[in-house]
Parts: sequence; structure tokens; C-alpha cells
Amino acid sequence: MAEQVAHSPDTAGSQRPRRLTAEARKRSILKAARQAFIETGDMNGTTIKAIAERGGISEGVIYRHFESKDQLFYEAVVEPLREAVDELVAATEVVDLEEPLTPERQLQTMNGLYRQLISTLEEVLPLLGLVLFGDPKVGRRFYRKHFAVAMDRLADAWRDVEDRYGFEFESPDLSARAVMGIALVLAMESRHNDLFNRDRAVALISESTIKGFFPVIEPSRRRR
Amino acid sequence: MAEQVAHSPDTAGSQRPRRLTAEARKRSILKAARQAFIETGDMNGTTIKAIAERGGISEGVIYRHFESKDQLFYEAVVEPLREAVDELVAATEVVDLEEPLTPERQLQTMNGLYRQLISTLEEVLPLLGLVLFGDPKVGRRFYRKHFAVAMDRLADAWRDVEDRYGFEFESPDLSARAVMGIALVLAMESRHNDLFNRDRAVALISESTIKGFFPVIEPSRRRR
Repeated sequence: MAEQVAHSPDTAGSQRPRRLTAEARKRSILKAARQAFIETGDMNGTTIKAIAERGGISEGVIYRHFESKDQLFYEAVVEPLREAVDELVAATEVVDLEEPLTPERQLQTMNGLYRQLISTLEEVLPLLGLVLFGDPKVGRRFYRKHFAVAMDRLADAWRDVEDRYGFEFESPDLSARAVMGIALVLAMESRHNDLFNRDRAVALISESTIKGFFPVIEPSRRRR
Repeated sequence: MAEQVAHSPDTAGSQRPRRLTAEARKRSILKAARQAFIETGDMNGTTIKAIAERGGISEGVIYRHFESKDQLFYEAVVEPLREAVDELVAATEVVDLEEPLTPERQLQTMNGLYRQLISTLEEVLPLLGLVLFGDPKVGRRFYRKHFAVAMDRLADAWRDVEDRYGFEFESPDLSARAVMGIALVLAMESRHNDLFNRDRAVALISESTIKGFFPVIEPSRRRR
């Protein structure tokens, strides 16, 4: 079906909105919603009407795809944040599965994690600000249901890696929070400071993070 | 003059607003403004009228004390944040001046810094959200003029301490950002997670931060 629409000649002309598949329409609504929410900086202050205007569609079209503004906010703002964090966690979960973790690979992995974390956070910074610092009720819910949960999952993934080495990792929950906090400030720095040297920052911060927050990896002690 | 007003009997009765000194009036306007800004979550969306209503005064009274909404926003929101950071920097500047810094005192000091930083950030979190993530132009300006500057001053204060020991502190700018980021996430955790154990967090995080981000202090190498 999507194929067919894509291949059919555009008989509608440039005056009428291009026919989109349901999936593409949904995506374009989500994009318009995201921009509207960020611009207003507030969930409550952003109306479905404003989102419809920004997307050049009617409010009815929006309600055909989304039940409520709450759902739209969730899918446009909360969902991409959740996905971003999921990707980070997934990247950590495969550490040490393909080849044994050496101190060098541990450092490389931390480097990659920070690099990905900083880019992701920089990209979603306005959304993150919106959910964490906008409506206090939204902030509390998002923090507890998503942000804290993501950090706990990151901690679990690290604990799994450490388990394979037979180490006691005293506070992976705090390490995950430390890494997230550091990346958050570096994402702000990267966004606002034109002279920010990301390579230097990532290299030094990775080394310090491992030294301070992670147990020493000794490949010879590997359990598996 | 303030004395006189304070000592004069309250002839106005309880129906009319209590006569306040200029200073007290200004403080009460700032308080009302702060609440209004936080509630709206947005500088642009908060009117002088709304602030006047919240303070139970006329708009004219506000304009007698503040030139513009911009100035009011600055003094109500930006200024307390700046002061909070100043206090933190001041606390660091006296480290090692009274008695030599030992590794134990270094840890104690970091402990105290985190404790103060987390409480301060937790308290100003809504304001911080407002200036860092509200209007993007305000966010960029606040980050560059205040947040980054504060972290750089913190870094300078540390560099001074380290200088007295003749150490090379490779990246105090990044250490300051790391500490601020960690404290920021812990402030959110403290605010939103009712089970958050601050003592455990501060103890572990301080130790890890020093291990990872600070050079080892050897009192015997002290220069002064």
C-alpha cells in the first residue's frame, strides 16, 4: 500500500498537501508537535491548534492519529528521549560479548559511550529541558519513569559486565548518574560554547570516569 | 529611616497592606516574581500584571522598584542562582588557607562541596530549568555568562589550591563541569526519588570524584 502511494503520479499538484501514508503523516505531525512544544517551552501552553497550524493540517487530522495532547506529547517528546536512552543502554549491553574486555577496550568503550551520550543529549536538550523542568508533575513523572529507570538499566548493564569478571561493583547506580550528569553538562557546553573541544573533553573525562567510578578490569580474572 | 518605619506603631490596620521599607518591598516583589516565573515556566509568558496580582500590589509599585520585566527576571531568578554559585566558589577558595590540606581533609571538603551543591541545586532547580532550558536565547546567555563562568571560577579556585602543592592539574575546567553535572543529577534524584540516600551518595561520589578527577594530595610536597 505504501509502495503504491509512493509510485502513483502526483496528480494533486503543488497547491494541495501531498498525500502521505499514515506512517509518514504521523511522523510529520510528530515533527510539527515537537517543534511547537520546544518553541512554547511548555506542554500546557501548546495547543493542538498551534500544532495543526505549524504542520499545515487541520486539528481533525491530528485527532485521527492521536487520542489526546497528552499522547501526542508523549510520542513526540518523551518517546524519542526514551529511545535515545535505550540505544545507549543497548550499546553497553554488548560490551564484552564479542571479545574480552581489556583496560584499553574499557577506555574505548567509555569514550564511545560519552561521545554518543553527549551527541544524543545535545540533540534532545530542549526536549529534555521541557520534560525535566517544565510542568513539575511531568518532570517528576518523567524523571522517575524514564530518566532514573534508564540510569538504573545502564547500571544493570555495567553490573552484568562486571559480574563476568567476578568483581563487586559497589555503586553502579551512582556511576550511571555521574556519567549522565557529566554528559549533560558537556552537552550544554557543546551547545553553547563554540570553542568546546569535544575530543579533549571526551578523552580526559573517560579516563577520569573509569579511574574514579569503575573497578579495575583484569582480563586474567575473567570468569566465563 | 528604615529604623523609624520599623518602630512606628502600625496605624494602618490589617486591611491595608503593611508599610514596608523599600528593601523589604523589593524582596517581597522578587519573591512574588520568582513564584510567578516558576509557575509559568517561562519568562516571556509571565506578565508584570500576573506578578503584581500574585504579590497583591499594583503594577506601578513594581515599576517603582524595577525598570523592566527583564530586570525583574534577572534579579529574581538569575541573581539568586549566581549568588548560590558564588557561595560555592567562596567555600572552595578558603580550602587549605587555615590548615594544610591532607587527603582526609580533601575528601571532607569534597563531601561538603557536594552536600552544599546538591542542596543549592535542588532548591534552585526550577529556576535553573527556567534559565537553562526556557527561552533558548536566555539559556545560551545564562550558560555562557553565569553557569560556565561559575564552573571556570570553581576550576580556578581548585587550580590555586593545587598550585600551592606544585601539582599540574590537567583539566580543572572539566573536573568542575563533572562535579556540577554529577551534583545536578543528584539534585534531581533527591527531589524526585523519596528513597534517595544522600549520605551514601555524597560519600561514594566524593571518593570517586577525587580518585578520578583530582591529583593526589601529598602534604609533604606542599610549597608554602
